[in-house]
Amino acid sequence: MGSQSNFQMKVVPGEFGYLLQDVPHFSDYISGLQTYPNPLRSNPAYSVVKQYFVDMDDSVPEKIVVHNDTPRGVHFRRAGPRQQVYFASDDVLACIVTCGGLCPGLNTVIREIVHSLDYMYGVTKVLGIEGGYRGFYSKNTINLTPKLCNDIHKRGGTIIGSSRGGHDTTKIVDSIQDRGINQVYIIGGDGTLRGANVIYEEIRKRGLKVAVAGIPKTIDNDILVIDRSFGFDTAVEEAQRAINAAHVEADSAENGIGMVKLMGRYSGFIAMHATLASRDVDCCLIPESPFYLEGKGGLFEYIEKKLKENGHMVIVVAEGAGQELLATKNEEDASGNKLLQDVGLWIAQRIKEHFAKQAKMPVTLKYIDPTYMIRAIPSNASDNVYCTLLAQSAVHGAMAGYTGFTSGLVNGRHTYIPFNRIIEKQNKVVITDRMWARLLSSTNQPSFLGPNCASISSAGQLGTDDKVTGLLGCLSSKP
Amino acid sequence: MGSQSNFQMKVVPGEFGYLLQDVPHFSDYISGLQTYPNPLRSNPAYSVVKQYFVDMDDSVPEKIVVHNDTPRGVHFRRAGPRQQVYFASDDVLACIVTCGGLCPGLNTVIREIVHSLDYMYGVTKVLGIEGGYRGFYSKNTINLTPKLCNDIHKRGGTIIGSSRGGHDTTKIVDSIQDRGINQVYIIGGDGTLRGANVIYEEIRKRGLKVAVAGIPKTIDNDILVIDRSFGFDTAVEEAQRAINAAHVEADSAENGIGMVKLMGRYSGFIAMHATLASRDVDCCLIPESPFYLEGKGGLFEYIEKKLKENGHMVIVVAEGAGQELLATKNEEDASGNKLLQDVGLWIAQRIKEHFAKQAKMPVTLKYIDPTYMIRAIPSNASDNVYCTLLAQSAVHGAMAGYTGFTSGLVNGRHTYIPFNRIIEKQNKVVITDRMWARLLSSTNQPSFLGPNCASISSAGQLGTDDKVTGLLGCLSSKP
Amino acid sequence: MGSQSNFQMKVVPGEFGYLLQDVPHFSDYISGLQTYPNPLRSNPAYSVVKQYFVDMDDSVPEKIVVHNDTPRGVHFRRAGPRQQVYFASDDVLACIVTCGGLCPGLNTVIREIVHSLDYMYGVTKVLGIEGGYRGFYSKNTINLTPKLCNDIHKRGGTIIGSSRGGHDTTKIVDSIQDRGINQVYIIGGDGTLRGANVIYEEIRKRGLKVAVAGIPKTIDNDILVIDRSFGFDTAVEEAQRAINAAHVEADSAENGIGMVKLMGRYSGFIAMHATLASRDVDCCLIPESPFYLEGKGGLFEYIEKKLKENGHMVIVVAEGAGQELLATKNEEDASGNKLLQDVGLWIAQRIKEHFAKQAKMPVTLKYIDPTYMIRAIPSNASDNVYCTLLAQSAVHGAMAGYTGFTSGLVNGRHTYIPFNRIIEKQNKVVITDRMWARLLSSTNQPSFLGPNCASISSAGQLGTDDKVTGLLGCLSSKP
Amino acid sequence: MGSQSNFQMKVVPGEFGYLLQDVPHFSDYISGLQTYPNPLRSNPAYSVVKQYFVDMDDSVPEKIVVHNDTPRGVHFRRAGPRQQVYFASDDVLACIVTCGGLCPGLNTVIREIVHSLDYMYGVTKVLGIEGGYRGFYSKNTINLTPKLCNDIHKRGGTIIGSSRGGHDTTKIVDSIQDRGINQVYIIGGDGTLRGANVIYEEIRKRGLKVAVAGIPKTIDNDILVIDRSFGFDTAVEEAQRAINAAHVEADSAENGIGMVKLMGRYSGFIAMHATLASRDVDCCLIPESPFYLEGKGGLFEYIEKKLKENGHMVIVVAEGAGQELLATKNEEDASGNKLLQDVGLWIAQRIKEHFAKQAKMPVTLKYIDPTYMIRAIPSNASDNVYCTLLAQSAVHGAMAGYTGFTSGLVNGRHTYIPFNRIIEKQNKVVITDRMWARLLSSTNQPSFLGPNCASISSAGQLGTDDKVTGLLGCLSSKP
Repeated sequence: MGSQSNFQMKVVPGEFGYLLQDVPHFSDYISGLQTYPNPLRSNPAYSVVKQYFVDMDDSVPEKIVVHNDTPRGVHFRRAGPRQQVYFASDDVLACIVTCGGLCPGLNTVIREIVHSLDYMYGVTKVLGIEGGYRGFYSKNTINLTPKLCNDIHKRGGTIIGSSRGGHDTTKIVDSIQDRGINQVYIIGGDGTLRGANVIYEEIRKRGLKVAVAGIPKTIDNDILVIDRSFGFDTAVEEAQRAINAAHVEADSAENGIGMVKLMGRYSGFIAMHATLASRDVDCCLIPESPFYLEGKGGLFEYIEKKLKENGHMVIVVAEGAGQELLATKNEEDASGNKLLQDVGLWIAQRIKEHFAKQAKMPVTLKYIDPTYMIRAIPSNASDNVYCTLLAQSAVHGAMAGYTGFTSGLVNGRHTYIPFNRIIEKQNKVVITDRMWARLLSSTNQPSFLGPNCASISSAGQLGTDDKVTGLLGCLSSKP
Repeated sequence: MGSQSNFQMKVVPGEFGYLLQDVPHFSDYISGLQTYPNPLRSNPAYSVVKQYFVDMDDSVPEKIVVHNDTPRGVHFRRAGPRQQVYFASDDVLACIVTCGGLCPGLNTVIREIVHSLDYMYGVTKVLGIEGGYRGFYSKNTINLTPKLCNDIHKRGGTIIGSSRGGHDTTKIVDSIQDRGINQVYIIGGDGTLRGANVIYEEIRKRGLKVAVAGIPKTIDNDILVIDRSFGFDTAVEEAQRAINAAHVEADSAENGIGMVKLMGRYSGFIAMHATLASRDVDCCLIPESPFYLEGKGGLFEYIEKKLKENGHMVIVVAEGAGQELLATKNEEDASGNKLLQDVGLWIAQRIKEHFAKQAKMPVTLKYIDPTYMIRAIPSNASDNVYCTLLAQSAVHGAMAGYTGFTSGLVNGRHTYIPFNRIIEKQNKVVITDRMWARLLSSTNQPSFLGPNCASISSAGQLGTDDKVTGLLGCLSSKP
Repeated sequence: MGSQSNFQMKVVPGEFGYLLQDVPHFSDYISGLQTYPNPLRSNPAYSVVKQYFVDMDDSVPEKIVVHNDTPRGVHFRRAGPRQQVYFASDDVLACIVTCGGLCPGLNTVIREIVHSLDYMYGVTKVLGIEGGYRGFYSKNTINLTPKLCNDIHKRGGTIIGSSRGGHDTTKIVDSIQDRGINQVYIIGGDGTLRGANVIYEEIRKRGLKVAVAGIPKTIDNDILVIDRSFGFDTAVEEAQRAINAAHVEADSAENGIGMVKLMGRYSGFIAMHATLASRDVDCCLIPESPFYLEGKGGLFEYIEKKLKENGHMVIVVAEGAGQELLATKNEEDASGNKLLQDVGLWIAQRIKEHFAKQAKMPVTLKYIDPTYMIRAIPSNASDNVYCTLLAQSAVHGAMAGYTGFTSGLVNGRHTYIPFNRIIEKQNKVVITDRMWARLLSSTNQPSFLGPNCASISSAGQLGTDDKVTGLLGCLSSKP
Repeated sequence: MGSQSNFQMKVVPGEFGYLLQDVPHFSDYISGLQTYPNPLRSNPAYSVVKQYFVDMDDSVPEKIVVHNDTPRGVHFRRAGPRQQVYFASDDVLACIVTCGGLCPGLNTVIREIVHSLDYMYGVTKVLGIEGGYRGFYSKNTINLTPKLCNDIHKRGGTIIGSSRGGHDTTKIVDSIQDRGINQVYIIGGDGTLRGANVIYEEIRKRGLKVAVAGIPKTIDNDILVIDRSFGFDTAVEEAQRAINAAHVEADSAENGIGMVKLMGRYSGFIAMHATLASRDVDCCLIPESPFYLEGKGGLFEYIEKKLKENGHMVIVVAEGAGQELLATKNEEDASGNKLLQDVGLWIAQRIKEHFAKQAKMPVTLKYIDPTYMIRAIPSNASDNVYCTLLAQSAVHGAMAGYTGFTSGLVNGRHTYIPFNRIIEKQNKVVITDRMWARLLSSTNQPSFLGPNCASISSAGQLGTDDKVTGLLGCLSSKP
C-alpha cells in the first residue's frame, strides 16, 4: 500500500497565479452520467434561500499571508451542496468505517453523516462497517438509522468500533461491489486515508460509480493542509486536568517533579497547545525538537536549575519525543526491555536515577499518563459543531459526484482536498516558527540546541522537514 | 461619542485589486521618531530564529472564498513583532482597562499583556485602571506585575474590575497625559471600542506619542471582521449544561417545556452555536430572525405540534430575540412592568397562559437563565491560547508604533484592524446564510416567515442588514 | 388526605429503656401466609456467606449521643434481606412511581429496584407508573426491564416522569387491585409519603397482600429521622458553581453583590451546606432563621458594612427564606405582583432600591437562580451508591412482607421506618444548633435577632420547632 | 517506632454494659492546671445559644446494630467545644504537619485549623511544618495566617508540603519543646498516627503541656473505627472518569478490555465503591479478596466468558490486589523486573500474553492509572464540609486539654478517639460482608473461591482478619 498515486492531480489555473488543486469527480472517468436536482431545494429549512447552494467556482486559497504583489497560488474547492447531484436518493447505499485510535467526536461525525444523508438527501440506507477496515470482510454490518444515532454524540468512542491495519484493497473493493455500496465514508488518520486513496484508485480502475470520501481524524493534529483535526480542542482541554494534577503533586513535595505524557507520536501539537493553555508547565518535550539529557544545556541541568529556583517543576512530554535517545539506548543495552519504548517512563526513570546519584537533591517524581482518559471523552461543544460541518461537507461532496477527497477546514472555510495532498507527509510543529518560540518563551526552557547549532540560527526562516531534521545534527555531543 | 471618524482610513493598493486597509502609526502624525532594535532579538526563546519577525508587507485577505478571476480585495496587516520598535523599554508606561460585561478570558488577556510586556520587551510599568473607563478619573490604580498576574487566568472575571459607560474623552486623555501613560490597552465590546477610537483621535489631535490598542471583547460574538471573539467557545460549551438541564426537566414532565435564555442582545451566535452543538433543542429564537407567537406558522402552533409528537421540547432564546414583540406589547399595555423586558420570562409567561386556556394540553414549563454562570467561568484551553495570542499581538503592535487598532483573528491569522472597521456596525447571524439553514434543519423549527414572504426567498443570496431587517415586513399578520 | 393515621404504631420494648418503633407487616392483618426461602440463598454472589441475612432482631437506635446512664430509647428495624420471603418470585407484580420535583438519583433508584427485583429475587414484572400518582389512572404503563434501565443512572430526571398532586386514594388502590400489583414502590417527598401512607391504610383495610414501600426523596433534605436524603450531596456540590459565579461577578464590579437562590422551601439545608462548603458566602438566609431588611442589625446595614470592607459580597438565599416579609408586603400592597413570591428576585429588587436611594453607594447586583440546573443533573458517585442501597433495602423489605414503611439511613445504617414517623412534620435546620452557629461563624453575618431576644439566648438548648417558631416574636420592630 | 503503647487506655464504665474508651487529658499527668472560660462564650455567632457547648458526659456508641437485650458496649467521647479551656489564647503556639501521600481535602483541613484557632479562640500563632515530619528538623516554618489560608481549599495538594517517613521521636519532641509549641496537629495515615502516638507518649513522659491531635488522612479509607476518611468521596467520584474512559475504550474495540488501577494498598474501598457507583465494571479485584488467573473459576476464564457475551469488559484493580501472585512469580522468575510490582501492569501483561496464545480471541487491552489525577484534585463540597468539622473538632479538643487523640466521625457523630484504637490495625473490606456481596452481585464476577472453600462458606459470619487471611488457603490449585 504505497502512497504513490496512479492518477495525476487535477489542476485548474486562473488569473494572477491562481491554481485550483481540484478533487476527482465521477465525470472524470465515467461518461453520460445522469444528474438530479438537489433534494435540498424542497427542504423547508433550506428552500427559503435559493442561493443556499455553493457556486461551482468557489474556492479557498491555501496560503493567505501575502504581500501586495504575491501571486494567488494554490486553492481548494469549497465544500457545500451543489445544485445538481449524481445520485437518486433511493439508489444510494452508503457505508461508514472508523479506523485507528479513538478520538473525541467520532460518534458526532457518524451521527451527522447518517442524519445528513437522511434529513437532507432522503438517503435511508447507511451501513456501519464494524471494527475498522477488517469489518469489510465480515458478514455483519450495522444498519445506522437516525434514531439509533440520535444521542451517540454524547458518548465517547465509536459505536461502530475501530481497529488498526487490516487493509486489503482488493478484498475491500470486492466487498463494496458485492454489497452494492456506492458511497464510502472513511474516518481515519493519514495511514487510513492512504488506504482510502488506494481504495478510490481501485474503484476508479474498475470504473465504478462509488464515491470515496474521507474525514481526517487524528487527535494529534498531524494531518497536513487542514487547520486542525476534530477532537483536538477537546483533547487539549482535557489534558489540562493531568497538567493541573502534575502541578499539585509537584508543588506538594520537596523537589517535586510532575511529568505528564500526552499524545503525539510524530508531532507535538497537543503537548504544545496544552502547555500554552496551562501556563504551569516548565518544560515541554516534543518529537520535532530534539533534546538531550546530560551535560551543559541538557534536560538534567535545566531540571536542577528549576528545582533550585522554585522547588518544583512540571514537564510535559509528547509520546514521540526523544525517540532517537531511546533508539540509541536500545542499541547500547541490547537488553530489549520493551518498556523503554514508553518515552515518558524512560525519561522518568532516567531523571530518578540521575538525581538519586546526587545526594544533595533527592527528587520526588510523579508520572501521569492520561492518554486513554483524553481519547475516550465525548467531544466538546466546539468540536461538536466542527464535526457536524465536516460530516455535512463530506455528504454534500459525495452526493455531488466528487470522490477521492476529504472534507477539511482550510483557513476557516470548509473545502474538499484531494487525498494526494493530505497523505504526502505528516503535519509537524515547525520549531523555527513563532508558535514554538512562544512556547519556549512561556516555559523558559532551553532550546536544547548545542553550540554547534549557531549556524542554523542564521539560516533564516526554516519551514521544511528537511531542515528540521537537520537540527538533529547539531546537538552537542553527549557525555 | 459618535462613531464618525475624523481621520480617513489608510488604504494601500497592490496588484490585481489588492487593497490594504492599514492601521494608523505614530509616523502618520509625528515626525522624526527614534526607533530601537526589537529586544526580542536577544531573547533566548526567539533569538534562535532570526526570521521570527513579521515581514513588514505581510497581510491577510478579508474575503477568501474566491473564483479564479476574483480581484484580491481588502487585506489587513498581519500582527506580530517587528524588527524595529518605537519605544525604549524603560520609557514605557502602559495601562490596561476592561469595560462592559464579564467574559471568559479577560484575566488571561490581562495576564498576557503584562507578561508579554515584561518578558518580551522588558517593560515593567503596567497600570491596571480599575472598574472600566471611569477608573481613569480615580487616583488609584493597580500595579500589574507578572507575579501578581501569574495565576489569574485560572479565575473568571477581571481582576481590575469592569463597568459600563463612564466615558469622557477629554478627562480620560487628560488622565493619560498627566500620568505619562504611553500605551493604552482597552479590552471591550463595540461600544467600548467606539470610545477607544475617540480616545485615539483626541490623542492624535494633541500629537501625543501614545499607542491605543484594543482587544475586542464580546461574549456575543457580535464584532465585525474577526473570526470569533475570545470567550465565545467557553460560553457555548458552558451553555450545554443549561440546555441539558432543560432537556431533562422537559423530558421528566408531561408536556414538559424546557426554556433556556442565552446571551445575545443583538446577535444570536451563542444561541445558534449552542443549539447546533447540543442537538437536544427543538427551537432556537434569535434577534436576527423575527417570529410570532400566535396563529398559523407561529410559535404556539409549533410547540403544540412538538408536544404532541414527543411529549416534551426544549427552546433556546437569545436575550435580544423578539424584542419587537415586547415593544409592541409595551405600547399596548402601558403598564410598564419592567420584567416584560426579559424576553425569556415574557415568552415563558405567554406560553403558560396560552396553554392554560387549552384545557386539553396543560404544560409544565421550566425556565433557566444561566447567563451569569456562563460569563463568570474561566476560559477553556482553546480560549486561553487564543487570548494569549491576541494579547501578544496587541503588545507587538503598540511597541511597533501602531495605534488606533485592535488585534483580531481574520481567517485564522492574527491581524491589526483599524478601529473604524470594527465599530461600523455589529456582526449578526445572517439568517439567509447556510449556518442558519443548518440550524433550521437541525431543529426542524419553522422559519416563521409568513406566506407574504415568498418573494423574499427568491431574492437570491441575502447578506446585508437592510435585507434582513426587510424580513420584518413579511411576517404574517398576527391574529 | 390527612396525616392522621388510623393504625397505631407497633412498638416493641426491650431492656434498659429499649423501644423498637416497628414497621407494619402482612402478618399484622393477614393470617396463614405462606413463606418461601429467600432466593438469595442460591445466588452465587451471596451464597458464599450464609450469614448474609439480617438477624430478625437487628435494630438501630435513633439517638446515639448518650451519657453513661441514658436509657436506650427508640430504635428502628434494620434493613436487609431476610431468611424467609412472603412472595414467590413469579407471583410478584411490582410497580414504581416517582412524584414531585426532580432530584438527582431518581433514575438510580428506579434502576436498582428493577435490577434488585430481577437479579436478587427473580422478579421480572415491574411496571413504571408514568407521571406521578395520576399515572395510576392511565391505561399506559412502562415495562421496566433491567436492560431498559441499564444506563439510566447516568441521566438526570426520571424516566417514568413525575408530577405533583393527583392523589385519589380510592382510584389508586382500585387501580392497584385491578392490575394485580402486589408491590408498590413510591419515591417522593413528605407530601407523597403522606399519600403513600393512606394508600397503605386503604390496602390494609381491604386486607390486600400488597406491600407499600417508600423511598424518601427531597432535594431539600427536609425529611425527618433519616440522616440525609439522596441527591442532597450532588445538589450541594452543583450549587458551588452558582456560588463561584456569583463570587466572580461580585468581585469584578464596584460594590458588586452576587446573589444565589437555592432550593429549600421550608428548610435551609442546601443553602447552609453549600455556604459551609464554599467559604465565599458572606450571608446565608434560610426559612428557619427570620431576618429583616432595614434598620439596625438588618440586612441592608450588614450589606453596607461588607461592601465598605471588601468592595463586594455574596448572598445565598433559600427559596423559602423571608416568606413572612413577603407575606406582609403582599397584604400591604395588594397589587398582587406574582413575581414578588420569588424571594430572591424580591430581595434583589429591595436591595437595588435601597442602595439606589443612597447616592454614595451604587451597587451592582447579579442574581442567579440555578435551581433547575441543580435538580436535573445525574447523581454523583456517593449518591449513586446511596440510592443503590436505599433501593435494595426497599426491595428486601417488601419481599420480606413488610409494608407501610420507607427505607432510610439512620446514623449511617439502613433501616425501615414506619410512614407515621416520616410524615409527622418536616425536618428543619435548628438555628440554635451548632451547625448553624458554625455557619454564622463562617460568614460573620448577624443573627438578625433583635435586642428583645436576649432572654431567648439564655433559655438553654433549643431543639424543638415550637421554640424556633418562637424566635419570630423577638425580631426587633422594623422601622 | 512500635505500635505498642506505654500507657493504658482510659476506660470509664456505665450502666447496662456501657464503656467509654476515653482520650488522654493534660490532667492525667499534670496537676494544678489553670482553666479559662471558653472564648466562644463571647463570640457573636455562638453566644446566642448558651448550650452550644458539648455536655461533658456526651458519648457515642461504636456499635449501633443491636438487639433488644444487647449490652451498650464501647463508646467514644463526643467532640465539640467545652465550657472551660486549658490554654489562654495568647499562650498558644500551634503547629500543623501533613504526612504521606496527597489526599483531597488536606488544604481544607489546614485552612480550618488556622481559621478556627483564630476566629473561635483568638489564637494567632500557627506554624506550618514543611514537608512532613522531617520539617521539624528544618529551621524554616511557614506562618499560617487566616488570610494566607483563605482560598487554599480550592486547590489540591497541601500548601505545607508532605513526605513519607522521616520520623525521629526525640528530635521531633526536642524541636517542639525548643520552639515552645504547645499544640501539635498531625494530619496523616495510620503510619503517621503511629508516629503521632509515640510523640504524644514522649511528651507525656517529659510532662509537657503540649496537646497532640491527629486528623486521620487516608484516601484508601483504611483507618479503623471512623465512618470514612476525608477525601474518600472525592476520590470515588473522580475515579468515575477513569472507569468511563475504560468503558468507552473497551466498547470501541473488538474484545476490548479496559483496565483501571485505583488506589488501595491494603484495602479495596475505593475500588469497591467506585465499582458500585459506576455499574460499568465487570470485575473488581481488591487486596482482601484473593484471586487466581488460570484454570477453572479463574480470571482468564471469566474474561473469556464476558468477552464472548458482550464483546468487551471493564476491570478495576486496587493497587494492592493480588500481591501474593506477584510475590510468587518473583520467586519463580528471579528476573527481578521491577515493573512487576505494579499489579495493574502485571495483570494487563499476563492477560495480553494469555489471549495472544489463543489465536481465536485477540484482545485489545487499555490500561489506565489515574492515581495522581485523583489524589491531586481539590475536595468536593461534601468533603469540604467534612474536613471543616474534623478540623474544628480537633481544635476544640486541643483547647480543652485533650491529647493523644484523633478527631473522627463515628456513626455520623464527631468524636475523639484515642490513638491506640486507630493504630491497632488497618481497616479492610470484609469480603464476607454484605457490601462485598452487593459488589459481586453488581459485577457478576466469580468469587474466585475454589471448590475446597466450601467449608468456609458455612463457617458463618466472618469478620476478622484471621478468617479473611484464612481464605487464601482455599484457592483451587492452579494448573
